Amino acid sequence: MADYFKMSSEERQSELEQLRKVYQEYQSKQLQLDMSRGKPCTQQLDLSMDMLNPIDYHTETGFDSRNYGVLEGLPETRRFFAELLDVQPEEIIVGGNSSLQMMYYLIDLGCRRGFVDSPRPWSQEETVKFICPVPGYDRHFRVTEYFGFELIRVDMTENGPDMDAVEELVQDPSVKGIWCVPLYSNPDGYVYSDETVRRLAAMKTAAPDFKIIWDDAYCVHHLTDEPQHTLNILQECRKAGNELRPLIQCSTSKITFPGAGVSAVAADEKNVTYILKNMMPMLISYDKMNQLRHVRYLKNKQGVLEHMKKHRAILQPKFELVKETLQRRLTPCGKVAWWTDPKGGYFISLYVEDGCAKRVVELCKQAGVVLTAAGAAYPKEYDPNDHHIRIAPSYPTLEELETASELLTVCVRIAVLEKLMQ
Amino acid sequence: MADYFKMSSEERQSELEQLRKVYQEYQSKQLQLDMSRGKPCTQQLDLSMDMLNPIDYHTETGFDSRNYGVLEGLPETRRFFAELLDVQPEEIIVGGNSSLQMMYYLIDLGCRRGFVDSPRPWSQEETVKFICPVPGYDRHFRVTEYFGFELIRVDMTENGPDMDAVEELVQDPSVKGIWCVPLYSNPDGYVYSDETVRRLAAMKTAAPDFKIIWDDAYCVHHLTDEPQHTLNILQECRKAGNELRPLIQCSTSKITFPGAGVSAVAADEKNVTYILKNMMPMLISYDKMNQLRHVRYLKNKQGVLEHMKKHRAILQPKFELVKETLQRRLTPCGKVAWWTDPKGGYFISLYVEDGCAKRVVELCKQAGVVLTAAGAAYPKEYDPNDHHIRIAPSYPTLEELETASELLTVCVRIAVLEKLMQ
Repeated sequence: MADYFKMSSEERQSELEQLRKVYQEYQSKQLQLDMSRGKPCTQQLDLSMDMLNPIDYHTETGFDSRNYGVLEGLPETRRFFAELLDVQPEEIIVGGNSSLQMMYYLIDLGCRRGFVDSPRPWSQEETVKFICPVPGYDRHFRVTEYFGFELIRVDMTENGPDMDAVEELVQDPSVKGIWCVPLYSNPDGYVYSDETVRRLAAMKTAAPDFKIIWDDAYCVHHLTDEPQHTLNILQECRKAGNELRPLIQCSTSKITFPGAGVSAVAADEKNVTYILKNMMPMLISYDKMNQLRHVRYLKNKQGVLEHMKKHRAILQPKFELVKETLQRRLTPCGKVAWWTDPKGGYFISLYVEDGCAKRVVELCKQAGVVLTAAGAAYPKEYDPNDHHIRIAPSYPTLEELETASELLTVCVRIAVLEKLMQ
Repeated sequence: MADYFKMSSEERQSELEQLRKVYQEYQSKQLQLDMSRGKPCTQQLDLSMDMLNPIDYHTETGFDSRNYGVLEGLPETRRFFAELLDVQPEEIIVGGNSSLQMMYYLIDLGCRRGFVDSPRPWSQEETVKFICPVPGYDRHFRVTEYFGFELIRVDMTENGPDMDAVEELVQDPSVKGIWCVPLYSNPDGYVYSDETVRRLAAMKTAAPDFKIIWDDAYCVHHLTDEPQHTLNILQECRKAGNELRPLIQCSTSKITFPGAGVSAVAADEKNVTYILKNMMPMLISYDKMNQLRHVRYLKNKQGVLEHMKKHRAILQPKFELVKETLQRRLTPCGKVAWWTDPKGGYFISLYVEDGCAKRVVELCKQAGVVLTAAGAAYPKEYDPNDHHIRIAPSYPTLEELETASELLTVCVRIAVLEKLMQ
């Protein structure tokens, strides 16, 4: 094995033939592995089963959480999320089972009514543009695409979005917001630097109602002994007089049960009051029994962090396995690919030789391993370099993951060789 | 005690003075009773606690309901609601903890995108009008008011909305829909007759995308040995070639836990496909663990009906007590009031002498008994006759209810006397 870029045509041909044999062996195994989404594995789901043990459903004040009411969330649940997100309980709205639905609601609200600082509903603007750091979370982009916004790409860096580009873009009054996954970003696993957070908080925006959707999805999802943190966006915005700017999201889907957890939004109290007022015609309350279950079981931030250590014990070896396999199998081939080294979150970004990502994903699929569609991390699923692949190591078993990772490296090598031989 | 309308001024004065003494005695008791909403009582909530016992969260096909996915609802939950609503499983979307939120979503969808049979989104119409049978459910009206619709009142009769008026109104293409609680209507407890259902299903509407929001909130909430039924609106609409017209709602909030149950919408499969496609950007799935909990515990329609007998055993005596008290205390006073005699549901409508409802509610409040605000059952909370009061007997204990009902009759008599003496 040697650097593919320095090989002769004959050497490449011979290497490709050999790899195709290996690939055919994988095909004959009739694998059926799904690594397309950031799904926790069965072992992780089992961690939280004790949360489902019977409890008394009366709150600390004696209120019966089994009945109607308390749209903003139970006091203890608001306090719980306030500690987790480092805000005040009054700055929390506890939501339902899906933080995505909460973000969707907020975008919908912006369109229909605008926010407390909006001159008019966004739907009455000629164009609404939203900044999408790429690669990013496909479901974020899809919400704003669904609402007809123009999605503006900005490159991600190791320190967060390219802030020079962002500061330039927000001079346009039709740019109404930005999607952010500040800690262990989806899919790169990058962490926004203090400077990035400060610039996002302080930048002058032409739109008076510019919103940062701050999806703190992985706020406690550490994978190493060096837990990473970002500055508190609400505090930083407040310092700059922009306290209405951030709408912070969080959920327990990857702490307890995906799709059966509790979500929360944190924001300045003025935003909270406005959002609650608008939610009043929509529903009487979210599921408070599930709220209470969560608080009784996880207790507080310390409890969550202890619980997350158990997730880490399951996840870390999977991330290590993938990285080790990529290192061992791809590095000797020259610059065919590089990958990120996240200290938390759910994904590794694999960047392959330009023009090869789709082919790699297709090859994997034909051998029974489903990856996230190439390009999915970009608005309209278009990766202009066709080089990015999102790897989600959480769901397969270690054994399955070993097979899948080995196969993946074979597919990368085949795809790059095919390109070089064109 | 005699007919107030036939009393002399002196007799009225003396009666009023005596009643005011009784009223003051109630005030001195410092009551704190809330009969404002249709809230199940503690005893009712206790009925479903066994649903929370540990279960295996794998579905009948072995799928792990604890993980992401299955937006449309688990197969067994779709089947469960399909049987309950007498439709096909493919005609069901299982929702979250709130059927109100589902109705809100559908109205929002109509505005933003329109429905599959809409020429354009409702938000692009000059005016959108919605028919509100009155008295009706305040939260229904509030949704359409929030979205800026013009609310058109139509009188309720014992057989459902005044269909002559409805058929006249739907000649207007800006009339896009109607709110219905077909069985044990909120607040009167009326049941839509077969003729009403057939006329709603078959009527020609000028709007091609006219929608019936069919809130079957009390579909199994019988209070007598003569369970009432309505015709199947989806079938009737289909017979008339209007199968896209009805959007049927249901929830287990008043079967298991209010605000922690499971909601569902039933509709023609074309509607279901369209709605699901639009929901895809909004969330990955609703809470499937709660779905499975419900199906395992309630099993099927027969299981639900058995369970509802336990609710009835608690509720029926409360309804009887209220009606008996009204009968005993008010009938001798002449035509000061009349009230409905529901065979199911959660409410009794009390119709007092015109111009007296607000005063009655105010008097009750000042003696510590909170009723639903007078007029709340009408759009914009305006009851032109000021005569309707919604009584929600479910939440108080029998003892509390006895006190509250007695007080209520005292307040009715005072208010009517005050009016007659003006």
